[in-house]
Amino acid sequence: DSLSTPIRVTLFPGDGIGPEIADSVKQVFRAAEVPIEWEEHYVGDQIDPRTQSFLTWESLESVRRNGVGLKGPMATPIGKGHRSLNLTLRKELNLYANVRPCNSLPGYKTRYDDVNLITIRENTEGEYSGLEHQVVRGVVESLKIITRQASLRVAEYAFHYAKTHGRERVSAIHKANIMRKTDGLFLKCCREVAEKYPEITYEEVVIDTCCMMLVKNPALFDVLVMPNLYGDIISDLCAGLIGGLGLTPSCNIGEGGICLAEAVHGSAPDIAGKNLANPTALLLSGVAMLQHLKLQDKAGRIQDAILNTIAEGKYRTVDLGGTSSTSDFTKAVCDHL
Amino acid sequence: DSLSTPIRVTLFPGDGIGPEIADSVKQVFRAAEVPIEWEEHYVGDQIDPRTQSFLTWESLESVRRNGVGLKGPMATPIGKGHRSLNLTLRKELNLYANVRPCNSLPGYKTRYDDVNLITIRENTEGEYSGLEHQVVRGVVESLKIITRQASLRVAEYAFHYAKTHGRERVSAIHKANIMRKTDGLFLKCCREVAEKYPEITYEEVVIDTCCMMLVKNPALFDVLVMPNLYGDIISDLCAGLIGGLGLTPSCNIGEGGICLAEAVHGSAPDIAGKNLANPTALLLSGVAMLQHLKLQDKAGRIQDAILNTIAEGKYRTVDLGGTSSTSDFTKAVCDHL
Ligand SMILES: CC(C)[C@H](C(=O)O)[C@@H](O)C(=O)O
Ligand SMILES: CC(C)[C@H](C(=O)O)[C@@H](O)C(=O)O
Repeated sequence: DSLSTPIRVTLFPGDGIGPEIADSVKQVFRAAEVPIEWEEHYVGDQIDPRTQSFLTWESLESVRRNGVGLKGPMATPIGKGHRSLNLTLRKELNLYANVRPCNSLPGYKTRYDDVNLITIRENTEGEYSGLEHQVVRGVVESLKIITRQASLRVAEYAFHYAKTHGRERVSAIHKANIMRKTDGLFLKCCREVAEKYPEITYEEVVIDTCCMMLVKNPALFDVLVMPNLYGDIISDLCAGLIGGLGLTPSCNIGEGGICLAEAVHGSAPDIAGKNLANPTALLLSGVAMLQHLKLQDKAGRIQDAILNTIAEGKYRTVDLGGTSSTSDFTKAVCDHL
Repeated sequence: DSLSTPIRVTLFPGDGIGPEIADSVKQVFRAAEVPIEWEEHYVGDQIDPRTQSFLTWESLESVRRNGVGLKGPMATPIGKGHRSLNLTLRKELNLYANVRPCNSLPGYKTRYDDVNLITIRENTEGEYSGLEHQVVRGVVESLKIITRQASLRVAEYAFHYAKTHGRERVSAIHKANIMRKTDGLFLKCCREVAEKYPEITYEEVVIDTCCMMLVKNPALFDVLVMPNLYGDIISDLCAGLIGGLGLTPSCNIGEGGICLAEAVHGSAPDIAGKNLANPTALLLSGVAMLQHLKLQDKAGRIQDAILNTIAEGKYRTVDLGGTSSTSDFTKAVCDHL
């Protein structure tokens, strides 16, 4: 049975508060008897020439081999001659879709109730091409690249997600009235895929209008799919609606079915090592990972325990206005299992 | 005195609901005895080769001559061989800064109280360069252009605005962690200008974080300055915080001190001609224009009349949940003068 052959999962605790919140996940997963064996990898202390970054080649190999991983925050060290840790992971593992469910947490009040959205972000190209140069002194340009292949791939992911998760609508977010060719191609691909999913309503919304609608009434949206930068912006906006990045899970989906779940908040060096960090985003990312592994049962139990702990309000970390330590909160979650 | 030599102002009523809300402005300004003579210009019904758009050359000349104008919504006709009306105005008149004050309307409740922000958007370059092409089949690129000249110019405008309007802080919004060269140059220019304004606090905020902070707590910001697309996105987001584009004024500032105030909402063809449109955004843009003309007295009186009418709640247009017609609302504003 599954207990005798545990699933191997790569764990990047990350830095700053990363190790503490990763500990929290390990404790909660152990308490829930999740049949997982962690393969831990830390960011290296020198540049690995094979990844051109501080990520070790072994850590990438581990994700490729296991097909599934969980990642804490990683702050890219300052300096030249190496690539950003997050961008290297996305490029090297071809993590083409970043999926962020954004749901109001029962019992944690913000200005918005019942937010229930999914943002799906193209994660490999667009404004993140890295292609930039100075044309003449005082004039610089950046290239935004949109390809048919990556656009179809993320659109296909979004519609398939909508269909398999009982969602009714996919909104493609764009600025094709200005970037007619790039965003135009993105929309064209979305339309092609939409044709294959007649049961899903498809609409197109300009990014500025989308942001206005989101702050006025997030219930106007269901699943949103968009190019890289718009996804970066809108997923953070949506996280803000429910209380911030400390509460939102994220999953990166790669070619060949790789799933790298991650907490997208920062590494908060100011509170690192002080037992003050909120592990919720990493815990919920872990839940998303379990859903991906089809361990629905464990996922559901852990998610309930997290949400109930927060809803109860007795154990809340400092960022949510409470006074609990990371370990108190973690223990409370375990007790709720 | 000013009554005997009225100031000539170009008026673009625009299309859709444009003429109705422009009428409202004319009535209110007349009732307030504003010493202005309107020079009305409509969008033409054929392409003017001198503007490469449906805007007539005469209308642009009128703004250049008067130095000041007020503009309703304009929908660019579909078709090839001509340029967008709004973009043509920005380019031809070199309207380099788009200024949008965003204040909660007393008495009109949204999820946010006491919003009091100014967004200042670079309005001529960036992602709006219009430079795009297909590299190979299925691969397209758009160029984002940032220049030292335009960045310094808008930064200078923002700091000068902050200083002369009793504002304490300027936040430059960017994504320089990804677009190191383009957004990096923008930030470098902002820093240079910031040095000259030691009394103004200067900070830099990444656009995704900025959107999250804005929806969590807009009071964290004061004056925001940013490249074109970020300004497009964030100004609409901010408008959403206080109720939408129907309530927010906008001013475009051009080289040589040109000021073109405009309502930035759409032309709402579905309700055009039905006496249903809300003239508030155009009225408040008119107020901003009067402030620019240093007619503070008239500006203040008209603004109070608008805000009091809305706060009173008896006359509200349909978009605000009321039942008043455009003309009823307009009359109520005049009565409040
Ligand atoms: C840290 C940064 C490079 C990253 C991004 O822009 O993608 C972050 O904002 C995110 O959303 O994961
Ligand atoms: C209509 C559109 C081209 C325009 C823009 O993108 O600038 C609008 O959104 C605005 O903000 O004025």
